[in-house]
Amino acid sequence: MGVNSNRVEHYDSHETIRVQSETPMPSFQIHAVQFPPETTTLQKLTHRLSEIFFPDDPLHRFKNQTCFVKFLLALQYLFPIFQWASHYNLSLLRSDFISGLTIASLAIPQGISYAKLANLPPIVGLYSSFVPPLIYSVLGSSKHLGVGPVSIASLVMGSMLSERVSYTQDPTLYLGLAFTATFFAGLFQASLGILRLGFVIDFLSKATLVGFMAGAAIIVSLQQLKGLLGIVHFTSKMQIIPVLTSVFKHSHEWSWQTILLGFSFLAFLLITRHISLKKPKLFWVSAAAPLTSVILSTILIFLLRNKTHEIAVIGHLPKGLNPPSSNMLYFSGLHLALAIKTGIVTGILSLTEGIAVGRTFASLQNYQVDGNKEMMAIGLMNIAGSCSSCYVTTGSFSRSAVNYNAGAQTAVSNIIMAAAVLVTLLFLMPLFYYTPNVILAAIIITAVIGLIDYQSAYKLWKVDKLDFLACLCSFFGVLFISVPLGLGIAVAISVLKILLHVSRPNTMVLGNIPGTQIFHNISQYKEALRVPSFLILAVESPIYFANSTYLQERILRWVREEEEHINANNGTPLKCIVLDMTAATAIDTSGLDTLCELRKMLEKRSLQLVLANPVGNVLEKLHMSKVLDSFGLKGVYLTVGEAVADISSPWKAQP
Amino acid sequence: MGVNSNRVEHYDSHETIRVQSETPMPSFQIHAVQFPPETTTLQKLTHRLSEIFFPDDPLHRFKNQTCFVKFLLALQYLFPIFQWASHYNLSLLRSDFISGLTIASLAIPQGISYAKLANLPPIVGLYSSFVPPLIYSVLGSSKHLGVGPVSIASLVMGSMLSERVSYTQDPTLYLGLAFTATFFAGLFQASLGILRLGFVIDFLSKATLVGFMAGAAIIVSLQQLKGLLGIVHFTSKMQIIPVLTSVFKHSHEWSWQTILLGFSFLAFLLITRHISLKKPKLFWVSAAAPLTSVILSTILIFLLRNKTHEIAVIGHLPKGLNPPSSNMLYFSGLHLALAIKTGIVTGILSLTEGIAVGRTFASLQNYQVDGNKEMMAIGLMNIAGSCSSCYVTTGSFSRSAVNYNAGAQTAVSNIIMAAAVLVTLLFLMPLFYYTPNVILAAIIITAVIGLIDYQSAYKLWKVDKLDFLACLCSFFGVLFISVPLGLGIAVAISVLKILLHVSRPNTMVLGNIPGTQIFHNISQYKEALRVPSFLILAVESPIYFANSTYLQERILRWVREEEEHINANNGTPLKCIVLDMTAATAIDTSGLDTLCELRKMLEKRSLQLVLANPVGNVLEKLHMSKVLDSFGLKGVYLTVGEAVADISSPWKAQP
Repeated sequence: MGVNSNRVEHYDSHETIRVQSETPMPSFQIHAVQFPPETTTLQKLTHRLSEIFFPDDPLHRFKNQTCFVKFLLALQYLFPIFQWASHYNLSLLRSDFISGLTIASLAIPQGISYAKLANLPPIVGLYSSFVPPLIYSVLGSSKHLGVGPVSIASLVMGSMLSERVSYTQDPTLYLGLAFTATFFAGLFQASLGILRLGFVIDFLSKATLVGFMAGAAIIVSLQQLKGLLGIVHFTSKMQIIPVLTSVFKHSHEWSWQTILLGFSFLAFLLITRHISLKKPKLFWVSAAAPLTSVILSTILIFLLRNKTHEIAVIGHLPKGLNPPSSNMLYFSGLHLALAIKTGIVTGILSLTEGIAVGRTFASLQNYQVDGNKEMMAIGLMNIAGSCSSCYVTTGSFSRSAVNYNAGAQTAVSNIIMAAAVLVTLLFLMPLFYYTPNVILAAIIITAVIGLIDYQSAYKLWKVDKLDFLACLCSFFGVLFISVPLGLGIAVAISVLKILLHVSRPNTMVLGNIPGTQIFHNISQYKEALRVPSFLILAVESPIYFANSTYLQERILRWVREEEEHINANNGTPLKCIVLDMTAATAIDTSGLDTLCELRKMLEKRSLQLVLANPVGNVLEKLHMSKVLDSFGLKGVYLTVGEAVADISSPWKAQP
Repeated sequence: MGVNSNRVEHYDSHETIRVQSETPMPSFQIHAVQFPPETTTLQKLTHRLSEIFFPDDPLHRFKNQTCFVKFLLALQYLFPIFQWASHYNLSLLRSDFISGLTIASLAIPQGISYAKLANLPPIVGLYSSFVPPLIYSVLGSSKHLGVGPVSIASLVMGSMLSERVSYTQDPTLYLGLAFTATFFAGLFQASLGILRLGFVIDFLSKATLVGFMAGAAIIVSLQQLKGLLGIVHFTSKMQIIPVLTSVFKHSHEWSWQTILLGFSFLAFLLITRHISLKKPKLFWVSAAAPLTSVILSTILIFLLRNKTHEIAVIGHLPKGLNPPSSNMLYFSGLHLALAIKTGIVTGILSLTEGIAVGRTFASLQNYQVDGNKEMMAIGLMNIAGSCSSCYVTTGSFSRSAVNYNAGAQTAVSNIIMAAAVLVTLLFLMPLFYYTPNVILAAIIITAVIGLIDYQSAYKLWKVDKLDFLACLCSFFGVLFISVPLGLGIAVAISVLKILLHVSRPNTMVLGNIPGTQIFHNISQYKEALRVPSFLILAVESPIYFANSTYLQERILRWVREEEEHINANNGTPLKCIVLDMTAATAIDTSGLDTLCELRKMLEKRSLQLVLANPVGNVLEKLHMSKVLDSFGLKGVYLTVGEAVADISSPWKAQP
């Protein structure tokens, strides 16, 4: 377009066209709308599939390489340890050693506590802090991920399994189901990674997770009142009402000794947590606090062992390494469906946490974590775990944060942690005999309280009300209904939000910003002016079956309102409707029918409908469905500006 | 922007910037990006809700009217009969009388046949052609809709109910459940209308319906082989395999007399249908054919009544008007859930047909049908029907087409039809005693064969492969699984298609069309050239939790590929990434985080990220979440052109 100030129209605020005198007839160079290069269906399909499954183009490193280099790269891809093992040195080892020991001090009490959260024997929590970290250090691509059991997955597994199977009456079945669920969680995670379906976890939006985690944290904290108050008979249900009923119904079982011990250590843990939050450099204060509490309380109970029978202790724990458990997996029978369901729910939750944590710390040090690769690593680690008496593990946020702050450099810190757990398993187990259960409850509460992220919730409320609604729904869903259903409702609301945006898209009237070829929303830009005789509408969504009826009605309403307005103000009569298709990024057969229909209906009212700037695939479909033919050569323009200039030029010639 | 040819940059094909000598430093007037006018949360909510529920602004007619006029308008809205009854005249009556009698001749055999399709007594089909048309003529807003039972809803009701309840062993229960399902269908339809949730039916896309109806038509036609071949023992299942098995397993029951009679009349009906399709003026040929067949075959059987015992006939039908059936409705008990489910599925299917047919004929005569109003009318008509021995009815395509072609002018034609049915019910029932069942089978086959719309299916394949996939899925789902499940799968695929579009949106590189301020997809527009030092990307979707991770990865990949390309060709190094946000019509909290993260990651690589043309609500959210602050004053531009001009101007000053 030979843009020239002489040829640009100016619209003044009285909405009449003023054309500068020396050039009475603007002779714009109109650019033809072009089709995208022709591609076959197969090419389109390949392109689409590669965008869906390989958006990161994982093979780009393999291009133009020799076979040997390709083999090395593949090996490094499958086992990231080969990427860094060759240039590993003593100084890195020193950092990893310190951070490994630091997270071990956190991992041991956490392992025992979280296993109790899943209604599993405490020793399973330690087993789960030994085998999976070793496997992850070979397969994982994150340098800072601290691997082990996490509170959310433990809680969900405990709640889903114990709704059907009692862990007190049939502990072997319960344990077997937990391992089976772990196996299916791993299988599910690894398949997502291998099939490159990682985007499934994207559907757990941050808003959903904020609500879900806060709800779960409250439920877990309330459940810990069992240990904290010393109640013996407690509900196994997970909703807030039965839990609270249970607390007050058994108030005669409350034990003042337990309460005193529990709340003192809870206060200690919360204070250390607060200190570390205020001064991130003092991260070790909260990292060391759980182990300190365990040691102190164990010594205390040991000293007072003849006077504190009311305080429940862990008791005997077997020494020794993880026993094999592949023979305990159930692949048939009544409870298989339960195990699969539990596996999928815990698998997806632990995956979400693991990937999110990995990405967070990777972005802090500006390296990338490959989502699909991580899924494979976490999945294989869980499959291996399920055969060696471990339950669901993933990258834990608290552990990774401590790991990062303690200066971890590579996944070797996970190996050091596993070694420390190994020593504990082999030699130190009898020391936990007198550890009071109430300390574990206090540790759990301190851990989960960090999951209540009210600041994020407040931000959601401020920025996006619908996101906040999804957050609220998952929060109350978890509190009052059940963990998986709460999660399901929240995902449904998130999806509904997308569908709502598509089924009721924004349409807006565009106006010209005087002296330019820019057309903008007149309600957003005060200086944008309507162009007389034109109604310029922008559609802010793909035109699909879900919105085609709505769009047709809405556009006709815009036309009706514009005509009413013109009649009321004796304005220039409407002659042409320009549809700016820039944001209508796709169209389906219903959408094509709608455009056709709309054009016919407007034609019956002597109004012309033209399209501006249809994107490539929309243009192609308009062409293939012959809708383009009905619009004619002059029905589609490259920009709104060119449409307005070209259509209005003959009118000006005959004033 | 003081656009002036001297100031416009030209990029030649060697991708170097050439600035015309007389103006070495372009001094563009950059337009500030403006926020939309501030609105409160309540105002936003009200606006959003009114767009969701009242997109057609139904109250606009009531504005600035006196109370009396408002009352009259409300009455006319509720009972559209008041709109046209006052200027009804004899000439209109003449047209309506002819068309009413024409559709009655179609309605009587269709009513009997479709009732058999739903495994109901034939008389119920006639009852259903009497009460509902009368109610619709008072409440409905379409002038051409022919109301009565339709094949799809009859088939679905028959298949869903008879899977659980046998219509031969417990006919009273079956009949009661059919009326109950009709009641719930009506209730569901009316509620959709009253709650203005009409968009629910939009989710049955045309592609889905094409496949569903073709599958259903094939199943129905095959089922009619029972009547057409004279088989006595036949499966009640609806899948293709048991039906075909049934046909050939009972081949000893085939009756040559029935087959001869059936296929001759089927041929007659198909030929008349073909004639009417070829010459629309001869519509009456196919409209009169069913009644002609019924009369001819009845006379034939009556004459040969001593020699044709093998041919099953309808037998005795009770005379008299619709008996009340409200006492037969089940509102409790074992089968309530089944009745509700059947009601909802048949309700939504019949609603889809009724609304689509109403809209089709309204657009032919350029009047509008109010979707929500129609839902109320159809819903109330079914509720009333369920209390007067009618089963699900709606606007039938075949009947409406005949009605329209026979010159119907108003809903009075429905009243005429009902009167004709009334006469039949009161006096003519004994005449149907000798009507052979095989004729009904032939009528049904002729009716449903028109539902196989292979031309539309071919068009779907040509224009949109994913739509075609949805079509295929519903087709095979209905054939091999079951009617409601097939429908469910197809809806799920349609929704998945929307989600896929959102979770894997298109991103594309824009280039400048030389001599203009227009930036376009470089793969679509060959003349569009990349701007050196810039990478201009357009995102073709809202930025949501479902795609934020993908978009981040994809944009980083674009940057990586661009840098590799530049390095390979010794080009100008990349300095700035411009994100064209025109088509990113919404953003949520995850999307905001992604933009923030992306900006930081690019900054670490010394690349500037700026946004161009964010729409109103995106801009607001960027502001509220403080992401805008991190981009700074110079981080957001009104157009890509202004961004490029403004950012590159200091570079040119220091060559």
